[in-house]
Amino acid sequence: MTVLVVGSVALDTVETPFGRMEEILGGSASYFSYAARLFAPVQLVGVVGEDFPQEHVEEFRRRGIDVAGLIREPGRTFRWWGRYRGAMNVAETLDVQLNVFGEFQPEVPDEYRDAEFVFLANAAPEVQLQVRRQIPGARLVVADTMNFWIENEREGLLALLAEVDGVVVNDQEARQLTGVQNLILAAREVLALGPRLVVVKKGEHGAMLVTETDLFMVPAYPTTAVKDPTGAGDSFAGGMMGHLARCGEVTDVHLREALAFGTVVASLTVEDFSLRRLAACSTREVEDRLTELRQMTRL
Amino acid sequence: MTVLVVGSVALDTVETPFGRMEEILGGSASYFSYAARLFAPVQLVGVVGEDFPQEHVEEFRRRGIDVAGLIREPGRTFRWWGRYRGAMNVAETLDVQLNVFGEFQPEVPDEYRDAEFVFLANAAPEVQLQVRRQIPGARLVVADTMNFWIENEREGLLALLAEVDGVVVNDQEARQLTGVQNLILAAREVLALGPRLVVVKKGEHGAMLVTETDLFMVPAYPTTAVKDPTGAGDSFAGGMMGHLARCGEVTDVHLREALAFGTVVASLTVEDFSLRRLAACSTREVEDRLTELRQMTRL
Repeated sequence: MTVLVVGSVALDTVETPFGRMEEILGGSASYFSYAARLFAPVQLVGVVGEDFPQEHVEEFRRRGIDVAGLIREPGRTFRWWGRYRGAMNVAETLDVQLNVFGEFQPEVPDEYRDAEFVFLANAAPEVQLQVRRQIPGARLVVADTMNFWIENEREGLLALLAEVDGVVVNDQEARQLTGVQNLILAAREVLALGPRLVVVKKGEHGAMLVTETDLFMVPAYPTTAVKDPTGAGDSFAGGMMGHLARCGEVTDVHLREALAFGTVVASLTVEDFSLRRLAACSTREVEDRLTELRQMTRL
Repeated sequence: MTVLVVGSVALDTVETPFGRMEEILGGSASYFSYAARLFAPVQLVGVVGEDFPQEHVEEFRRRGIDVAGLIREPGRTFRWWGRYRGAMNVAETLDVQLNVFGEFQPEVPDEYRDAEFVFLANAAPEVQLQVRRQIPGARLVVADTMNFWIENEREGLLALLAEVDGVVVNDQEARQLTGVQNLILAAREVLALGPRLVVVKKGEHGAMLVTETDLFMVPAYPTTAVKDPTGAGDSFAGGMMGHLARCGEVTDVHLREALAFGTVVASLTVEDFSLRRLAACSTREVEDRLTELRQMTRL
């Protein structure tokens, strides 16, 4: 089945101990799409400005990512400038220019409205909710968010959570959203807000799945070659949703595998700048890492 | 088989969001012994002062912990004052008084010298090395250390690492010892210093085992009732070494199980102050949590 993603497409300038790259392809929908496409067909809804290189659009198409929902608006493309230092666990945002993404009111094209697996990448909760209501028949709608919305748009975020099936948060966001320090308890509080599945991303420490019937923990696939952590979270979500769409159903077993594929795909993303590593990797390579991860966690 | 531990026996004063306890039983050898005793007989080498309550000694004995190596010296017992706040991930040490532990030159009693499983709890590396050389025939000698020694007694620590079979470090210590940020690479650098097994403790994120032939990652057993994290690391080591002594051999499979038992026992320790929770728990409870952990990590 197909995965639909609604999110940002950006031009990033990124500095890490391994170099500095300017105006490279970034954005949550880009990372998500490349990752999910390793498993299933992808439909992308997003916006770019007049300055967005057409070659990136062509590359999406070449990879089989449907960009009928990627519109071009007058103005400049979303830009993010970030820096990572030391253990590279935290991005310092040096500057953000929302540009055309700031005014974006996503319209899901008619031919996408029967989408069954939908990912609402990080955006204003109100915008995410508008999108969610455009695809009422979806089987699994999962939303991402960030600390900024938890702090400044709490009501909108709670309204969104009441209408989605799943949410992906990192450990700090889970704590911030609930005021609960213990991650299991925090995740259970998030469940009580509406979603039937909560995925807590813990960066280099892996991820946790909490549902009414399951608690699952998977370590991160231990890559030793981290060059640029940008996009790890969106790639994780892409691997996760892509695998679920490939399976066509959402059981506890599929969800567990989906988290594992998420961490594997994220481990690939961070091994190079931008989408380079994901662009170069095969489904076979992903499957091989999953096999290794199974072996490394077998008890 | 029996486990021998050489380490501190202390009186702790601990403050957490769940209360403040004064002069409670603490110290690395105490936590280790209670934990290991859930699996195997334990011999303890340590020192206390004249003020150490005899009831704690009797309780060690009652639990089947051999205290022939626990000597009483003129002076006061080792004291530690600590505080945990917020997520309780970091202990703030408010005061330390080494007292009789500061001058301690451990002598392994003759009847302990055929010990096969030995844990050198955190102490000056030079002292740990002296102990190590008193039990040359041991099958598995594992050492703990801390940031203070890495910073201030590096040479002594390297000499120790060249003569032990295993080392237990936390993530920050692994990075500090090697100057390498990536934990897998850091652990491999530690292997190159001598030990044939390196265990990296990651607190609430679990633990990692690195040997020449294996890489294993296990999440922490997710207790939701953390009251006092003191002793988690030593309990982890106790569960790990206790299980290995119970098995009587050190294969990759046993090592993996040993780490899992370590995290399970640590999860119990932190659920109450001092040794209370470990004192109240049964081997059955530990086995049940291990079964749960297996289930929660099954991929």
